[in-house]
Amino acid sequence: MTNTLSIRDLQGSQLAPLAVPHRLLLGPGPSNAHPTVLQAMSTAPLGHLDPVFLGLMDEIQSLLRYVWQTDHPMTIAISGTGSAAMEATIANAVEPGDVVLVGVMGYFGHRLVDMAGRYGADVRSITKPWGQVFSLAELRAAMEQHRPRILALVHAETSTGARQPLEGVGDLCREFDCLLLVDTVTSLGGVPIFLDEWGVDLAYSCSQKGLGCSPGASPFTMSDRALAKLRDRPSKVANWYLDAELLGKYWGSERVYHHTAPINLYYGLREALRLVAEEGLANCWQRHQNNVEFLWQSLEAIGLSMHVDREFRLPTLTTVRVPDGVDAKAIARTLLLEHNIEIGGGLGELAGKVWRVGLMGYNSRSENVERLVAAFQQVL
Amino acid sequence: MTNTLSIRDLQGSQLAPLAVPHRLLLGPGPSNAHPTVLQAMSTAPLGHLDPVFLGLMDEIQSLLRYVWQTDHPMTIAISGTGSAAMEATIANAVEPGDVVLVGVMGYFGHRLVDMAGRYGADVRSITKPWGQVFSLAELRAAMEQHRPRILALVHAETSTGARQPLEGVGDLCREFDCLLLVDTVTSLGGVPIFLDEWGVDLAYSCSQKGLGCSPGASPFTMSDRALAKLRDRPSKVANWYLDAELLGKYWGSERVYHHTAPINLYYGLREALRLVAEEGLANCWQRHQNNVEFLWQSLEAIGLSMHVDREFRLPTLTTVRVPDGVDAKAIARTLLLEHNIEIGGGLGELAGKVWRVGLMGYNSRSENVERLVAAFQQVL
Repeated sequence: MTNTLSIRDLQGSQLAPLAVPHRLLLGPGPSNAHPTVLQAMSTAPLGHLDPVFLGLMDEIQSLLRYVWQTDHPMTIAISGTGSAAMEATIANAVEPGDVVLVGVMGYFGHRLVDMAGRYGADVRSITKPWGQVFSLAELRAAMEQHRPRILALVHAETSTGARQPLEGVGDLCREFDCLLLVDTVTSLGGVPIFLDEWGVDLAYSCSQKGLGCSPGASPFTMSDRALAKLRDRPSKVANWYLDAELLGKYWGSERVYHHTAPINLYYGLREALRLVAEEGLANCWQRHQNNVEFLWQSLEAIGLSMHVDREFRLPTLTTVRVPDGVDAKAIARTLLLEHNIEIGGGLGELAGKVWRVGLMGYNSRSENVERLVAAFQQVL
Repeated sequence: MTNTLSIRDLQGSQLAPLAVPHRLLLGPGPSNAHPTVLQAMSTAPLGHLDPVFLGLMDEIQSLLRYVWQTDHPMTIAISGTGSAAMEATIANAVEPGDVVLVGVMGYFGHRLVDMAGRYGADVRSITKPWGQVFSLAELRAAMEQHRPRILALVHAETSTGARQPLEGVGDLCREFDCLLLVDTVTSLGGVPIFLDEWGVDLAYSCSQKGLGCSPGASPFTMSDRALAKLRDRPSKVANWYLDAELLGKYWGSERVYHHTAPINLYYGLREALRLVAEEGLANCWQRHQNNVEFLWQSLEAIGLSMHVDREFRLPTLTTVRVPDGVDAKAIARTLLLEHNIEIGGGLGELAGKVWRVGLMGYNSRSENVERLVAAFQQVL
């Protein structure tokens, strides 16, 4: 022992074992993880190069391709939360000086602008009021004006509850020799997605929403077009942890050590994806749609209204207008502390104007709608 | 539903629930997590802004300061594995053009060189054969030659099993107006560390070694000197996910949303740290030392020898020389598949020449030494 110094002790040594209340998480995420997923996460860890673990990684890749409806070989989990997967798409797609066009219709569009700037992009943006989406004609006009190398859009804007239609956008991008990068954080598993049909080149998501897992291992995918741009860049990716070339050598056949994977989260993600596959993707999407329609109907029945036009509302996340004179934060706090139900508040343009209610993954169930609406009736 | 396309199904829908073998992980990490930690990780998640969860984060900060013996207010968990915390120190310390001096005495020194280069550093390095360490005089000579803004050293080189003494290095760095950045991935919790006494400005670690947790939430700390450099930089940190200013607003009193924390991993980390505090840091260090001495003695008794000089051997990770004519990989494979014991192989200069045996956190117990040595005797 080289210990010649005295150790400063602390009150921490008196802490009790973990004990937390059981909340129903109906905010913008995380949602409650499926009990089977939580159980899988408590399995004793394997090594990150154990052949059994490598087999689980192959299964995760295959299942991620299924839920995204893509054949991209480079489809993996990033060892971080959704924001890390978001940064992985930017870090691997953007070279300094690239024109990146971002469609900003809420908080996460603004974040894409910030991130792309940090990687040296020449960032241009088009904007919509929070809760609205871009038409294909508007996107075409912006492409003609800015001629970007990358177009970044948010499929499901978690801050507004709006769904950006993506039909035709991939063809538009090919016409302009541009990569299409899409945020599917609040859509994967809960909203119909067809990455390959839509021509999406880079996408990211999270585990704790539509997939019903715990946060920390996050879906990421790149097309061969995006990989070709990566291979041709003269400079290294300005992020070691998220470098897709290094990650590909671990997830691919070479199995070169890159970093220690978050083993137990991969257990949980594999289990969550398996449950989606067992239910069937179409059934899973339909369940989200049925339950959200029940939510809208039930909220309207008690006099509340939704912020987003019905056509563009997400099945996973609903923005509910705060009635005049009601203190949005106080209501959410009462729901949390007295009813053990978490809902989210508005961000940015919608701060104080909406609540955000998520029905995602394991939480998209009619009994949760009933419990929330009953609690809302009591506290309003 | 906008689902008009047909869904491509896959074999994934036929997968069985998770079932993995129970391995004893005595490699360079991950180690087996403490059963109480695994149980905590299966607790239903809270929201990342829930007041109860924010309270747990405060406890994690306090406990991390204890195990590192530091008062740095900016001491948090990074939402990724140890490599992400490593990158967080580089991203927040290095500005383009900064001279960064790296002491390379194994794999992780090389990685620091790679990472610092990606952030625009003017990287200089000094090297040692794998298994040796730098003397204070050697470090002083290199400081005089290179005059770096940041000196980066590896306290516990996971690839070699060598412990770099740090006494006096902080004073040396202050003399040269330089920040001291230290890798404590394989030392935190198992090897005496006194960050403040040693004058360490930036450090990172992982959860799955000396702390006995599962990987995915990783200790990170910055001194006020390092934070001052961060505040003064003219450009944004070239990494959004790991930006310490944004992270500080979530972990500090402002509680501004940055990203969704890996909730269940934080449960596990808090529990793992609580167990260290319950045992007492000095007792925990002493247990690691006692068990590793038992390991060395037992291995020597069956004719094996250690690679690193006794004075600089880590209590957490031992490099064991492969006897002449023995196929190191074949032995490790047999231990894994027939005895359910994982040990590591050599990397780089030590490939094929050593095995790497970890006794870390929950796994640093005499019965594990006995089980390993008995298995070694059978397979050799």
